Amino acid sequence: MEFVSIVIGSKSDYGVMQECAKILEKFDVPYEMIISSAHRSPERTKKYVLDAESRGAQLFIAAAGMAAHLAGAIAAMSTKPVIGIPMAGGALDGLDALLSTVQMPSGMPVATVAIGKSGAINSAYMAMQVLALKDKELAEKLKEDRVMKAKNVELDSAQIEHLLPR
Amino acid sequence: MEFVSIVIGSKSDYGVMQECAKILEKFDVPYEMIISSAHRSPERTKKYVLDAESRGAQLFIAAAGMAAHLAGAIAAMSTKPVIGIPMAGGALDGLDALLSTVQMPSGMPVATVAIGKSGAINSAYMAMQVLALKDKELAEKLKEDRVMKAKNVELDSAQIEHLLPR
Amino acid sequence: MEFVSIVIGSKSDYGVMQECAKILEKFDVPYEMIISSAHRSPERTKKYVLDAESRGAQLFIAAAGMAAHLAGAIAAMSTKPVIGIPMAGGALDGLDALLSTVQMPSGMPVATVAIGKSGAINSAYMAMQVLALKDKELAEKLKEDRVMKAKNVELDSAQIEHLLPR
Amino acid sequence: MEFVSIVIGSKSDYGVMQECAKILEKFDVPYEMIISSAHRSPERTKKYVLDAESRGAQLFIAAAGMAAHLAGAIAAMSTKPVIGIPMAGGALDGLDALLSTVQMPSGMPVATVAIGKSGAINSAYMAMQVLALKDKELAEKLKEDRVMKAKNVELDSAQIEHLLPR
Amino acid sequence: MEFVSIVIGSKSDYGVMQECAKILEKFDVPYEMIISSAHRSPERTKKYVLDAESRGAQLFIAAAGMAAHLAGAIAAMSTKPVIGIPMAGGALDGLDALLSTVQMPSGMPVATVAIGKSGAINSAYMAMQVLALKDKELAEKLKEDRVMKAKNVELDSAQIEHLLPR
Amino acid sequence: MEFVSIVIGSKSDYGVMQECAKILEKFDVPYEMIISSAHRSPERTKKYVLDAESRGAQLFIAAAGMAAHLAGAIAAMSTKPVIGIPMAGGALDGLDALLSTVQMPSGMPVATVAIGKSGAINSAYMAMQVLALKDKELAEKLKEDRVMKAKNVELDSAQIEHLLPR
Amino acid sequence: MEFVSIVIGSKSDYGVMQECAKILEKFDVPYEMIISSAHRSPERTKKYVLDAESRGAQLFIAAAGMAAHLAGAIAAMSTKPVIGIPMAGGALDGLDALLSTVQMPSGMPVATVAIGKSGAINSAYMAMQVLALKDKELAEKLKEDRVMKAKNVELDSAQIEHLLPR
Amino acid sequence: MEFVSIVIGSKSDYGVMQECAKILEKFDVPYEMIISSAHRSPERTKKYVLDAESRGAQLFIAAAGMAAHLAGAIAAMSTKPVIGIPMAGGALDGLDALLSTVQMPSGMPVATVAIGKSGAINSAYMAMQVLALKDKELAEKLKEDRVMKAKNVELDSAQIEHLLPR
Repeated sequence: MEFVSIVIGSKSDYGVMQECAKILEKFDVPYEMIISSAHRSPERTKKYVLDAESRGAQLFIAAAGMAAHLAGAIAAMSTKPVIGIPMAGGALDGLDALLSTVQMPSGMPVATVAIGKSGAINSAYMAMQVLALKDKELAEKLKEDRVMKAKNVELDSAQIEHLLPR
Repeated sequence: MEFVSIVIGSKSDYGVMQECAKILEKFDVPYEMIISSAHRSPERTKKYVLDAESRGAQLFIAAAGMAAHLAGAIAAMSTKPVIGIPMAGGALDGLDALLSTVQMPSGMPVATVAIGKSGAINSAYMAMQVLALKDKELAEKLKEDRVMKAKNVELDSAQIEHLLPR
Repeated sequence: MEFVSIVIGSKSDYGVMQECAKILEKFDVPYEMIISSAHRSPERTKKYVLDAESRGAQLFIAAAGMAAHLAGAIAAMSTKPVIGIPMAGGALDGLDALLSTVQMPSGMPVATVAIGKSGAINSAYMAMQVLALKDKELAEKLKEDRVMKAKNVELDSAQIEHLLPR
Repeated sequence: MEFVSIVIGSKSDYGVMQECAKILEKFDVPYEMIISSAHRSPERTKKYVLDAESRGAQLFIAAAGMAAHLAGAIAAMSTKPVIGIPMAGGALDGLDALLSTVQMPSGMPVATVAIGKSGAINSAYMAMQVLALKDKELAEKLKEDRVMKAKNVELDSAQIEHLLPR
Repeated sequence: MEFVSIVIGSKSDYGVMQECAKILEKFDVPYEMIISSAHRSPERTKKYVLDAESRGAQLFIAAAGMAAHLAGAIAAMSTKPVIGIPMAGGALDGLDALLSTVQMPSGMPVATVAIGKSGAINSAYMAMQVLALKDKELAEKLKEDRVMKAKNVELDSAQIEHLLPR
Repeated sequence: MEFVSIVIGSKSDYGVMQECAKILEKFDVPYEMIISSAHRSPERTKKYVLDAESRGAQLFIAAAGMAAHLAGAIAAMSTKPVIGIPMAGGALDGLDALLSTVQMPSGMPVATVAIGKSGAINSAYMAMQVLALKDKELAEKLKEDRVMKAKNVELDSAQIEHLLPR
Repeated sequence: MEFVSIVIGSKSDYGVMQECAKILEKFDVPYEMIISSAHRSPERTKKYVLDAESRGAQLFIAAAGMAAHLAGAIAAMSTKPVIGIPMAGGALDGLDALLSTVQMPSGMPVATVAIGKSGAINSAYMAMQVLALKDKELAEKLKEDRVMKAKNVELDSAQIEHLLPR
Repeated sequence: MEFVSIVIGSKSDYGVMQECAKILEKFDVPYEMIISSAHRSPERTKKYVLDAESRGAQLFIAAAGMAAHLAGAIAAMSTKPVIGIPMAGGALDGLDALLSTVQMPSGMPVATVAIGKSGAINSAYMAMQVLALKDKELAEKLKEDRVMKAKNVELDSAQIEHLLPR
């Protein structure tokens, strides 16, 4: 079975990462979610990543804060796409995690998204955009979602809009 | 025909982006490369993106500097994955381009890679890792490339290695 | 009718942007205010900007946070002056939005003001200073406002002033 | 006579600011350019600004580096629009000048453009976009310039374009 | 009469600046404190500074936030020492004010102290260290204060000290 | 007796530094903890450091915020290893303390750990990793602690884990 | 004899600090200049500072880069005013030295000036502005210098000035 | 045999890291030096670290740039002390590497030293300060080195010293 694998570096990031899971559920995309750390449980991380890949994981979403190595560590273990979410937990509000996630050396990319909650949501969308390359139904749903997003902007606007008479 | 589409925001970024093209060529991945700007030629950008998508573009790679909006603009036009490379051209050495590329709002992700040349190379690898999800031959090549990269580390090391007698 | 057009990238920025609207109202400057996003509703944004321009919009005020592309996107659609306000919503307190707004490429300027509430207020003043170039009454009001601002400084000071006997 | 006034904080910024003057000349927009400092010649700055305003200056362009106060100081002297260009001369590559220029307090705006050369060019364009509100011929020229800019992107692209056969 | 002059850029900074006044009072150093802005009341600022200097002001303490020009503006009006305190009010927590205060051009120094409350206190100490160059009694008090500060460290430590038996 | 010496720059950092002490106590590593400042009590700091070293201090842990000189000052007094913890107290959230602690000149190292609470904990671990080089029992305990940390990750994960049926 | 004492943290900063010495010589202000490090020669630094103070040093100018502790260390040894110049030598272009110099704790101020050469020059001016409080001749020279600086701005401007016919 | 193990993440960092090796050689401290990457050769890194530890490695020095994970990865594999040197290679001059190295999560410390060459030198000194805890001869040499460093400051100073006659 093809699925998305979400790896969270620390329990404290679980709350934010539920936003990612919710989006995948809403689009009926199978996923797994576990906690595993690049530093505190490197063996577990490796074992899980290899196992998940063998069971059908198509891509990995990794969320970590501070010296956020998790996404990079997974990228070093697998040639599946890895999406990294810098978490904002540390004193520097996620700038540390952003640079630790995005500035990967040549040949070992991590697809980095925004810091924190926006990134958690965007990691799910990026994963689905990738999967949609071979899943027409999902591709269709993503297009509909865009239409709805645009409509929501209109609804939001309608509540506050101030237009001059034509 | 399925291919990768590279859009460069400015002629001055062409030199760095050749690194991206070289990698795709080395792996025999079909690609297109054009210059088009989010600000100076928004119509052309849009027309190209929609046309490329209709002709088989699987994902877009966008490179821009300073207030780097190109990747985000393409992400707003297409639900194909968009990989963004922050270029280092401005006075702030690419920090401006990094934040302009990665900090996308919820639901509109850009898969951001490292600033400058490393990012140019990594955008090609990320694109191929995505394509490899439905191209076993490419997946195999990426795994071989990893093996070779590890071997190259050994060769580099051999030139300087200083080991104590066991 | 000549007017100022305010475009807000997200409902969450409406509270701050009311400060802008209040100033324009206080000076009897006609304005419109809508929500439209560079990324979630690019077509709506474009349609609105072109329509507003045809109906008399003299300049655009655009407020957005994070990878704040809204002002730049409008600047690419119109040759009317565009004033950009970087909003402080993201993890980086608006530094991302500031750089995304101000670092525009050659030939495509955005007149950027301060992050957040001060910027919202200043965007209204900058718009009026521009309009006052062809509106003597407004120019007069702006000069009176300056006098009053200076007087308010005196009133503020009077409450805490500690002066030595001459 | 209506004109644009350019004030440069230091001789060392003259080279970059010629880019601004060149653009104005190309569009036949009358301008003045002088060197005057907010700190070393505050009286001269004030005298010039008031005199220039009385002689028809429509807006001021101010370029300064480091603790760049020049644009803000002029903004405090005049209710004409002031465009500020942060120069990159100091050890911090213009980040200091950017923050010193853009973070103006409520009610005293400076329209800030990009750091350095791009900003110098953009200050000229922003000034012309403002003037074009009451100068149809100039407005027309700006629109033509946009068309040419888009064409130049195409010409640049033609030199490097790599398109797949349709 | 010789005294220290404190100029605060905005009412909102009064609370923090009382820390400065309290220190001067504790050491019986005469001072004045007013609110005046570099931007909103430049004439008042200038008039006050020249008058204060003529009445015996030995040095100026200036506190301002964001694009903090107040200290620099006073430095341009007087050759008395000017101490600048960057206030933390803006979105960037005072980094903007720090750079706007400290990065003064050659020949026009501002003696900059720490951001916010520590800076408010330190501005008073720096002022007194300057005045003590010609006031032996004050110099003595400052030395005693240092002794007391060192003793307070010991008292603080005694509350938590954990020492091993010798 | 061999022990670890903890020096805290200010009473306000005591709360965070108890995390350091707790870890050392848990591992039965003897330690001392005092408050002493590089600036307010330099003599006391020096006297204590020399005395502690003579009584068996094996390494020093120093915690300070803002212009955090304490660790560097101790490093200049002793050739024992000094571990520095940048505290997050100032307006800049510890970035100032981080740079003041880590950027030591050639030949005078401070072993710097993370900002704030994570750093407080890590300073204890780093101290123990150093002591364990000559204390096999401690080395064993550190290895067990790693095993437990990895287990705790599993326990954390078990609470939220979402795995697909194999 | 009253004099200014310049302490340079490292030989590599001597070139820049000659700018400071040149200014003092030009104004006939007696000074001393030595190299001494807060970290590599703390005893020498202390001995020199106490000796210089006993021989008439009125204030100290300290220049250092990276984790620039020199000015703060001298401030802890003396109640004479200490002016700190952050040097730009490290990888971070002096931002590290700026924060290490300016963010001093309450009660222990360092009067910080700009990074690098501008700061070296400004430290001399700030020192003279302090000394001029009790030296009328020097005060007069400083006023004349300001007049000359303003004239130099006019001379600079004359070379490039572009004024419209009145 | 007890020794120091130096692991360099990339050939491009070899030049700087020779500074580290030179210091160890000068003090007759046995060391090994290899190139191995956290991302490109994770297996090799792990195998080497475990082997080196079994052969007597007392501590690890790891140098890497950009998203510098090497030191953290080694810290996760071993309970020996790990010293991390952030290299300045990327577009951000080593700020990325600094944050990626120092901001380690609780319980997994990396002893971080300065960016680039100073850090390379300091990593050697920190390693020796640790080893000297159980090597009196080395401890003595380090003390002598400090004396020599202080003397060198005097020699440097003698070349430029400008002292007033007593």
